Amino acid sequence: MRRRSPSSFFSIFFFPSSPRSLSPSSFFSRFSSSLSVMSPAREAGNGDSQSRVTVIGSGNWGSVAAKLIASNALKLPSFHDEVRMWVFEEVLPNGEKLTDVINKTNENVKYLPGIKLGTNVVADPDLENAVKEANMLVFVTPHQFMDGICKELSGKITGAVEAISLVKGMEVKTEGPCMISSLISKQLGINCCVLMGANIAKEIAEEKFSEATVGYRESREIADTWVQLFSTPYFIVTPVHDVEGVELCGTLKNVVAIAAGFVDGLEMGNNTKAAIMRVGLREMKALSKLMFPSVKDSTFLESCGVADVITTCLGGRNRRVAEAFAQSGGKRFNLYFRVTSTAYS
Amino acid sequence: MRRRSPSSFFSIFFFPSSPRSLSPSSFFSRFSSSLSVMSPAREAGNGDSQSRVTVIGSGNWGSVAAKLIASNALKLPSFHDEVRMWVFEEVLPNGEKLTDVINKTNENVKYLPGIKLGTNVVADPDLENAVKEANMLVFVTPHQFMDGICKELSGKITGAVEAISLVKGMEVKTEGPCMISSLISKQLGINCCVLMGANIAKEIAEEKFSEATVGYRESREIADTWVQLFSTPYFIVTPVHDVEGVELCGTLKNVVAIAAGFVDGLEMGNNTKAAIMRVGLREMKALSKLMFPSVKDSTFLESCGVADVITTCLGGRNRRVAEAFAQSGGKRFNLYFRVTSTAYS
Repeated sequence: MRRRSPSSFFSIFFFPSSPRSLSPSSFFSRFSSSLSVMSPAREAGNGDSQSRVTVIGSGNWGSVAAKLIASNALKLPSFHDEVRMWVFEEVLPNGEKLTDVINKTNENVKYLPGIKLGTNVVADPDLENAVKEANMLVFVTPHQFMDGICKELSGKITGAVEAISLVKGMEVKTEGPCMISSLISKQLGINCCVLMGANIAKEIAEEKFSEATVGYRESREIADTWVQLFSTPYFIVTPVHDVEGVELCGTLKNVVAIAAGFVDGLEMGNNTKAAIMRVGLREMKALSKLMFPSVKDSTFLESCGVADVITTCLGGRNRRVAEAFAQSGGKRFNLYFRVTSTAYS
Repeated sequence: MRRRSPSSFFSIFFFPSSPRSLSPSSFFSRFSSSLSVMSPAREAGNGDSQSRVTVIGSGNWGSVAAKLIASNALKLPSFHDEVRMWVFEEVLPNGEKLTDVINKTNENVKYLPGIKLGTNVVADPDLENAVKEANMLVFVTPHQFMDGICKELSGKITGAVEAISLVKGMEVKTEGPCMISSLISKQLGINCCVLMGANIAKEIAEEKFSEATVGYRESREIADTWVQLFSTPYFIVTPVHDVEGVELCGTLKNVVAIAAGFVDGLEMGNNTKAAIMRVGLREMKALSKLMFPSVKDSTFLESCGVADVITTCLGGRNRRVAEAFAQSGGKRFNLYFRVTSTAYS
């Protein structure tokens, strides 16, 4: 979001006397007013004048990403209407294949039940087929699958293809840590941005107001295209020229959330929790700058930084695991059952 | 708190396998290890070689401040043992005076029941008498009483007296806003620091770990004396050369908390709440710098900034008022009864 005048936030509170006019949409009209429409004017690598998008991953967050993208692909002339979504095929209890059900109902009944993805989302269980026409790849799977996916796609991505990673975490190899965006860039030979932020998937699926941050390495134009593809009036995306900073925020905040969970489990109180979150944010910054000196301080004040630390320390899965661990006196049994029924975050 | 190595926060998690060793005190020993003992070496204005402290105010937070100070006054040779506390006299339901009960039981039975303040805290209902020997004044009353208190003390403060304000809020006059520390300085002709932070009083009274920030205008030595007077192993105080920035954090965070309360009342979700807190923090900074160009960006990452925004938006009174207002469809009746039973924060 662009810088606004200092009075704009505080003037939000001068609303009419009836709070019925304080609807979420009017409340946040100020946020979305700063969005401008950009035209990417990029020639798609498939020879088409329209960009074709494939979402690689179909879990909770992947399905929401597909929903956001699908709504924009229909509206914006620079994108092909169809959004392909690679789905790791599963057979549902009734014997139907997950891809068939998604394509029939426009709903990911297993990972995002009750939310229509859009009739232009096409589920595809074949990874190579799902990406073959795309020039914009959105990676959104658990991080442990990324190495295998990149190996499977290696040598099969040709032309002017751009990628964005929504994957949290990093690969830790013997030669040091490797960011997921770097893994994608190295193994597939393509540029890769990242999108991170205070994004509980279910809330975005329900079209509740959220912010996110796109981190880019070089081309602002590419970043603006991703911003355009994801942005809706309820999902405000800000581009930041700091791919490693944004990606490390999305990764390291989970460590802070573990500390916050210990604080909750040990009933240390809100002052302690705020201190842990504050010091955690500061140390996320210090560690990130140690790993990549180009990382910017200001990134930690974007949605991917302080805001994601807040949501993750309030309700994230890592917080809950740590809370349960502390409450159970360090016993690990039953932890799995206590926390895995909740959404990935 | 001083800057530590980037790995120190993340290394907290490498604790022994039994979480029984994860006690709050061991968990936070890293925080307190950065505290150094300072000697103020100041000549008290009363001709005594020891500083004498008076706390002006005896509500929830004032009583906790007196407890913190009283424990240090007993330990540190540079402070006189006795800590005087001005109490707005009240007659309790049993007919006893509040000051008499405090002096008999060492407990503020009305505003901080169940917590011993220290035998060296002396409650005094006479404001002029309470301050007459003191060379260190701690102001901690609701902001609306400060103008009257300063008028009553005007001309009666002599010698080398230092003040610190724990008062949130500002006086808004026709000629513009006036910070409480400026009001004290102007009306009493003395230097005034401020102490703000993520400080729910009850949690500090229970000796749960907290951080706070001292803002100072000129003398780092004076700031260090205040830090020494307030610091305990469970209350870590950091001096910051930005009195207006620290004070505005303590004031403006309540506006952000009102927004957070609307978000809660309208059930907008955690993503929206994190966005409101993030944008709120950014606009607190912008407004503060507009009012005082000397305000520093880094102040907003101290306990008085991001951490206090977090605690206040999670549990503060302003958040609760706004939540109740939104939930009740904007009706104000009964709000008083729904929120005033909770502690001042």
